Formats: sequence, structure tokens, C-alpha cells
Amino acid sequence: MSEFKQADHKLLVIPGPIEFSDPVLLANATPGTAHTSPAFIPIFGESIKLLRKVLLSKEESQSQPILIAGSGTLGWDAVGANLVERGDEVVVLNTGYFGDSFAECLEIYGAKVNQVKAEVGNVPTDESIIEALATKPKIITITHVDTSTGVLSPAAHIASLVKKHSPETLIVLDAVCSVASEDIKFDEWGLDVVISATQKGLGVPPGLSVVLASKRAVEASENRKTPQQGYYISWKKWIPIMKNYEAGKPSYFATPPVQLIYALHTALKSITAKPISERIEAHKAASKYVKDELTALGLDFVPKSRDIAANGMTAVRFPQGLKAPDVLPKLAERDIVVAAGLHKAIVTEYFRIGHMGVTAVDRQRGDLEKVINGIKEVLGKK
Amino acid sequence: MSEFKQADHKLLVIPGPIEFSDPVLLANATPGTAHTSPAFIPIFGESIKLLRKVLLSKEESQSQPILIAGSGTLGWDAVGANLVERGDEVVVLNTGYFGDSFAECLEIYGAKVNQVKAEVGNVPTDESIIEALATKPKIITITHVDTSTGVLSPAAHIASLVKKHSPETLIVLDAVCSVASEDIKFDEWGLDVVISATQKGLGVPPGLSVVLASKRAVEASENRKTPQQGYYISWKKWIPIMKNYEAGKPSYFATPPVQLIYALHTALKSITAKPISERIEAHKAASKYVKDELTALGLDFVPKSRDIAANGMTAVRFPQGLKAPDVLPKLAERDIVVAAGLHKAIVTEYFRIGHMGVTAVDRQRGDLEKVINGIKEVLGKK
Repeated sequence: MSEFKQADHKLLVIPGPIEFSDPVLLANATPGTAHTSPAFIPIFGESIKLLRKVLLSKEESQSQPILIAGSGTLGWDAVGANLVERGDEVVVLNTGYFGDSFAECLEIYGAKVNQVKAEVGNVPTDESIIEALATKPKIITITHVDTSTGVLSPAAHIASLVKKHSPETLIVLDAVCSVASEDIKFDEWGLDVVISATQKGLGVPPGLSVVLASKRAVEASENRKTPQQGYYISWKKWIPIMKNYEAGKPSYFATPPVQLIYALHTALKSITAKPISERIEAHKAASKYVKDELTALGLDFVPKSRDIAANGMTAVRFPQGLKAPDVLPKLAERDIVVAAGLHKAIVTEYFRIGHMGVTAVDRQRGDLEKVINGIKEVLGKK
Repeated sequence: MSEFKQADHKLLVIPGPIEFSDPVLLANATPGTAHTSPAFIPIFGESIKLLRKVLLSKEESQSQPILIAGSGTLGWDAVGANLVERGDEVVVLNTGYFGDSFAECLEIYGAKVNQVKAEVGNVPTDESIIEALATKPKIITITHVDTSTGVLSPAAHIASLVKKHSPETLIVLDAVCSVASEDIKFDEWGLDVVISATQKGLGVPPGLSVVLASKRAVEASENRKTPQQGYYISWKKWIPIMKNYEAGKPSYFATPPVQLIYALHTALKSITAKPISERIEAHKAASKYVKDELTALGLDFVPKSRDIAANGMTAVRFPQGLKAPDVLPKLAERDIVVAAGLHKAIVTEYFRIGHMGVTAVDRQRGDLEKVINGIKEVLGKK
């Protein structure tokens, strides 16, 4: 079984799902196992603990991981259903497609949303953020990496603005495309909710919603005046379950995705075998390589500058006169799968390359060189 | 790769998750694949079509499958968020633990729930159902198999009562523990929503919420006066995505659990290779074998009679004087995993055996004989 090798396939370098390691995929093929079995309980319990380690949250009593079957999007509902009460003010910092959608989700749960929008490829100005904080909103949301633009929001800096200008405001980081690929310091930055999914930096097949909630956020959900909204997404239901598994006790609210949690556990053990800072540095190095090479080819990026460009992906503009159908199918012929544009305002003007997980960390695979060489060939620069 | 064999493990015979076939587990280890890739689109599209086939829903225009990352429980939220408006009357037919929970979920979405409760091990009387229908509720829910009691509700008969006494009422079948193991005739019975999950009769790892909605149910969700509740669970968001995939077009709302859908596709291809009626008959034969053998050992069942006992599982009472710690660990020592009791009123008095999927259909495996022999040994009857 240890010799399992995944099937041959095209190199997947989109902003998630990503390439998965053989051990992670083998874990996803774990035989039928009861969610309450003595074999599974420590796997689930340790996964909960290791998630804190990835997000640099030290104290067990200070943060609560919540791992449930779902996609990254379900994390938005977790914020809406557990933290928003009708009429609550929420500031959504918008750096692309995912800000619009998060805002739409929170409005369904009754939030009065104030969107602070950046121009495409940029981040909101400090002034606009400080102005939005003047009303002391209950929640502020940051899309850490908006995969529609490849923009990396300066989350530490924004959190410091919140602490200074509206310290009671809960800070929610949409980190779907940043956990385990970008710097996140949960305790140090004073974050309240980190939302993620497994198919990006964590390198695990899609289907798990990953959330880390601060003690303050959990208390806010407990102390709300109106009942929480939603049932499956209810923290009141799930937190006791997570605490039980972490304490080594079986517990049931809804059936966890057992195989995906085995896969996550395998990934988390590998990720935390070294300091997380090393992994983030590897992503920065991978990103620099890709962006330097693309720059050398004369290509431009969607983010306005390197310091607000994601390290786990690159949103790169087509050369003048070329569009997706001129480039993407030719890369696919070379067994390289990149992603088309997503942001409506510029959808035909750019494409997206993911470089997270094994592609960024295990450079011996040669994934990045394959992508760059493929692009050179397709653009006739080789 | 075709020679993949899953790791050795204890025989899993609980009412889900169940044993999975090697091809299904290998499909769950499919390499990283984009949710929009030409390879994946037909897999997802065909899975949608095949689900109708399993549930005997013939017309594409008459029913809408909805497959999203989540557990079976998320299907309750689907009903609450899309079909319930505040103040709507809902009748919940209660045959155990899962009726209580479904009712709790619907109340969160504003339903005025009228629970029609059966005594433990029984189903509600016709009179009590007809009486509850007198107010013409918007929705009636049936737990097809309540795994806490092993009771099988006579869904066809109940549906006929609804058609006669309150034809406008939407019929929701909680079929988490019955799809692909018990008779379900979506069109013929006139069902409106079937809710399920993958880890039971379908024989696929947990993590996929499986829903089939009638045209009438979809129209009810579209014609509601107040906005739908919830975001991730919104049919308005998901139905266009499902229609696109079925038509062979990529589409995005939230990332589908690609590997689980490959696994589901593998299972559905196998299930639909023969008439579904044959599969159901195999489950009935497996159930008869187990129940006859247990009866011969002098054991009693939680369901009051055989005709309201599930075919995919058996809820069996311990012999006088024995409790779970006397039996379950000894079965586990013999590599047989059954489940303890769940229904509060009788929790220490019984245990549960699952016999769904390959365990019931592929009798050459000898799973059922292994379970029965194990029980005989532990009870000193061999």
C-alpha cells in the first residue's frame, strides 16, 4: 500500500484545486471507517490541533477549529449564520469577485454591508478602511487572496488598523486561498475568524470547510440576542463535537467526511513537520520565480505591484492581441492546466496560474519549470 | 492502477458509513483535477443523470438532482432554507431520533412544526397522519429509515394518504439511510424532495449531500414570497450549476468535491448496471438472512414487526442481562464493527447492524455470515 502512485494526469496549476501528494490521495482512499471508531478519533482530534499550529494559534483555550463537510463558501455562511444578527453592520473589504459574493452571503443573513472597494488589482486605501471603521461595525471581512485578481491583502496591517480604530470589531479573514501558502499569524494579528478550504494551500481534495474561530468570536456567537441562523452550520452544534474529538471522545452531530479528514491529517502532519515559516518562504520563492520569468517574457500582472501580489498564485495578463483560446488549449495540449480569468471587468484579459502545495514546496518535481517552459513555447518565446 | 486493493481493516457493518468497493476508493484517490476540466464535466453530468435512474425519476424536466459538499444533515437545511417561509406549517412524521432533529432544523427556518410521533419501534397511525393533514400543511416529512430505531416508514402508503387528503402538500423523504437500499419510486409515489448522503446505500465515502427535488418543489422555492434563507445551500445558486454540468458545460458557484464525485460516479455506474429493483431485492434478502438468524438466536428487534423493519440495517435488542460493553468490544476483537444504540429511550437495550451496499449485494464476500458467526460466538451460542 505504501507504493501507491496516483494515475498519470495533466499538471494542475490553477488557484485550487491543486496537485495532491500520493500519501494524501492514499489517505483519501482509506477503507470504510466509523466516524466514532477508536482508529478515527485520534486522527480527527490531532487534525484539529494541527490546524492551530498551521495558523500560529498557540492556546487551545483561545481558538476553536471547526472542520465540517462543505466547500470554502460554506465558511461565509458560518460567519453569517453564527455572528450576524439582522441589522448588524459589516464592512467588506473588496479586492475582487469573492468580496462581492461574501457581501451577498452576509446580506442574506441580515447584515447591513458597507463594501469598501479597491480598483481592480489594488487594495483599499488605509483612509477608506479607517473611514469605514468610524461607525464601529460588528465585523470586518478581508479577502486575503482574491483568486479573481491574485491580489494579496495586507492582512496584518489591516488588522492593526482595526485594533487601533475599532477594537471591538471582529476580524474575519477569508483565507480560502491563503492558508498554508501565505503568512497568517492568528494570535499575533488578533484575528477572530479564519475561513478556508482544503483544496488550496493545504493540498487536500475539496470537500472540507476549514474554520478557526477566536474565543471572542465564539463568545459573540453565544451571546447573540436572536437565535443563530441555519442548522448544519451552527457552531452551537459543532463546537462541542470538535471539543470532544480533540479530547479523544467520539461524538455525533452530522457524519464527518472521514476519508477527507484522513487526507487532511496526512497533509497537516507533513506541513507541520517543519516550521510553517519555511513553507511560506517556499511559496514566496516559487512565486518570485514564476513572476520573474513572466516579467522577463514582457508580461504584466493584474495586481498593481509585487507587494500586493499573492505568493500562491499569479494573475497574469495576456500579451497584446492574445486571448484565452489562443493560450489555454495549447497549454492543455502540453498537459498543463491553468485557469482562465474570472473577474468580470477584465475576464478576457488575463489568466491564472496556481503555485501552492507540492508544486511550490517540492521544487524537485519541476512543476514550475514545466509551466514556464510551456508558456514560453505557446508564446513563441522559446 | 486497476490492481488497487484497499488496506486490511475491520468489517464495517454499522448503519453508515459502510464498506466501500476498491474501485470506489480508487476513484476517491483521483489525482488533482479542475472542477471545470473537460475530464470532470461528463463525470459530474452523468452522476446527475444516474441519480434520477436510482430514484426511478424518468423525466429530466421533472426532477432536479443537487449534489454538493456536505453531510446528509445539510439536506434538512436545504428543505428549511429553500422551501420553508416563516410561519409555514410542516408536519414531521417522527419514528425516532432523526425526526426530532429534522423538526429542530425546520423550526430554525421558521416552520411551525407539528410532530406526529410514533411509539418507539412503530410508525404513526394512518389516523394521526390524516388528522395532521387536515390543516393542509405546506410540507410533510417522512424519515424513510430512522437509523435510531431501524424502523422503515411505509413511504408509498404515506404518500398516497397525502395525495388523497392534502394534495398540495410537498412530500419530503429523508432517505439518508434508504437510497439504493430500500424501494424509492420518485415519480410513481409523487415525491417532492428526496434527501440523502453518500456513505450509506450508495456506498461512497461521506461528504456529499444528495438531493432530488421535483419540479413542484423547485417552483415552490422560486415562488416564495420572502427571500430564500442561507447562501451555500441556495437552490437558486445551485440549480443553474447542476443544469450546466448536466448539459456538459463547466460552471462555478462553489468548488464541488471533485474526488467524491468521481467516487459517486463509479458507484452509480455499478449500481445502475442492473435494474435497481434487483439491488433492492438483494438488500431484502440480506435483511431476511440477518433477521432470521438473529430470531433463531432468540433475539428481538426494535421495530414492532418485520414489515416496518429496514432492509439496510437491523436494530436488535440485547439478550436479557447483556449490554453494549458485553458485546460490542468482543465483536470488535473479531474485527466486526457494529453500532451501539442511539435512541435515548432505549439506548442501552439494543445495538445496530448495517447491511447495505457491497455487504448486502456481493454475498460472496461473506460479510453477513461473519457478522452472524461473530454474534453467535460472543453470545456463546456456537
